[in-house]
Amino acid sequence: MNTELKKYLNDKKKGIDEFIKEYFKTPVIPLILHESVVYSLTAGGKRIRPILCIASYEACNGNKNIIPYATAIEFIHTYSLIHDDLPAMDDDDLRRGKPTNHKVFGEGIAILAGDGLLTEAFRILSNPLYAKIKADTLLRVIYEISMAAGLRGMVAGQAYDLISEGKEPNGEIVEFIHLHKTAAMIRASVKTGALLAEASEDKIDRLESYGEAIGLAFQIVDDILDIESTTEEMGKPQGSDMQRGKMTYPRVYGIEKSRKKAKELVDKALETLSIFDEKAEPLRQIALYIVKRTS
Amino acid sequence: MNTELKKYLNDKKKGIDEFIKEYFKTPVIPLILHESVVYSLTAGGKRIRPILCIASYEACNGNKNIIPYATAIEFIHTYSLIHDDLPAMDDDDLRRGKPTNHKVFGEGIAILAGDGLLTEAFRILSNPLYAKIKADTLLRVIYEISMAAGLRGMVAGQAYDLISEGKEPNGEIVEFIHLHKTAAMIRASVKTGALLAEASEDKIDRLESYGEAIGLAFQIVDDILDIESTTEEMGKPQGSDMQRGKMTYPRVYGIEKSRKKAKELVDKALETLSIFDEKAEPLRQIALYIVKRTS
Repeated sequence: MNTELKKYLNDKKKGIDEFIKEYFKTPVIPLILHESVVYSLTAGGKRIRPILCIASYEACNGNKNIIPYATAIEFIHTYSLIHDDLPAMDDDDLRRGKPTNHKVFGEGIAILAGDGLLTEAFRILSNPLYAKIKADTLLRVIYEISMAAGLRGMVAGQAYDLISEGKEPNGEIVEFIHLHKTAAMIRASVKTGALLAEASEDKIDRLESYGEAIGLAFQIVDDILDIESTTEEMGKPQGSDMQRGKMTYPRVYGIEKSRKKAKELVDKALETLSIFDEKAEPLRQIALYIVKRTS
Repeated sequence: MNTELKKYLNDKKKGIDEFIKEYFKTPVIPLILHESVVYSLTAGGKRIRPILCIASYEACNGNKNIIPYATAIEFIHTYSLIHDDLPAMDDDDLRRGKPTNHKVFGEGIAILAGDGLLTEAFRILSNPLYAKIKADTLLRVIYEISMAAGLRGMVAGQAYDLISEGKEPNGEIVEFIHLHKTAAMIRASVKTGALLAEASEDKIDRLESYGEAIGLAFQIVDDILDIESTTEEMGKPQGSDMQRGKMTYPRVYGIEKSRKKAKELVDKALETLSIFDEKAEPLRQIALYIVKRTS
């Protein structure tokens, strides 16, 4: 990663981490619920989704502090990881090198922590006072995010992922899973930034395409890393997707073709950014970084 | 129940059921997720929360079709039941006389169905087109509902309920659990109706108090019914709260004092409605019906 991007990501991450700290200054009762929520929110997430939201906002000349709204997206991402790790789902003991939420707090509290984070995200998004955002803009943001996260978005991807374990590799199914499970929320994160900046519909559309392309690329690279990297690098057991017979890109197309597909998607993402000026540089660098993780 | 109230509840229930049918006309993919969601949404719920929302709206002279927004509250209620029944939570096999969601579709799909319903509720609430509601009104509704359902609302109540099983009966704790687990969402349902009608702040406050009082009364009566009614009447095993050492009102105060408390709450609820005209009659009848269930 180049120094400039590293600095950008670190700066934004700091703002997001500070908002999370501030948000939970008054503890949630009962305390075990508070600890469970804070544990997963501060377990070393790279904050890619909220950073993409902010980068998109800045690319559209936004100049308010939209960190609270961006962080709401991280709440949704964190809830999805907590529920995804549950025994009835992926049954993972480790996440980012640490015990998963239910391993520390028990399944009941882990389910509730996820439910609470998802709900709390909408409480943040419906508070216009954070950055004096217009009500109809926030309403549109809530609509986009709930669509991307809901029954015809991320949740559908998770469900298809769950029922496809051990099944024959299938291109259409892996496309459905990756588009819904991962790309939908990354697309919504980027689109949210554009909506909050009240960008033109053309810019909103382009950023949406950018988001979907890098979202899909991101998941394909994750699939490749599951095979190629070590357990230490991943923070979870290497090869676990493979072992569980998960529907992944490499299983359907092989590693080389998957790598090529990821590169094509990033090229497409960069192409859609062509009309943006240097303020979109972080978005370009993030897209490039996604494929670099694996080549 | 008097015939008039019965007719009112049936009419409103019909509208809500129709909206649910319409909303899932295009199936969710994968189909097992669709079936899981529709199964619990149509498993015989009395639609008390959305009906309270509509009755409150009508008491404030609202005259649009707000069924979609009211039904969003039923989505949240249904998600909470699905998750509450899970083995890691209350571990119930029966709900309203039918097998619980995870018994039919498995735990993974049940968790996702709940997640999806919760998220979808916010997608409905953020769509102003359903009844041409002002964006800032809907934003305030979303804020109220997410606060009532979230980490400092219903989820907190569920968590405290979970960790209090088998503990010494304690008045403060049972009050916290009932106010958060049950009363918060009933209060928000009633308040939502007033907000959608753009009622005066005084009316909104009064309806909020009414909602909290009947919400608490409702849960106390539920506690009493767990002890006094039969398994058939309840649709789930009689005495299950008692057996599990749940923190209930009768366990803390005994049956007679609990019944008295419920009656006092309903009287208080009726008192707060004193400034409303005959359009608030359904709200009055519902309050009275709540205590009648147990005497």
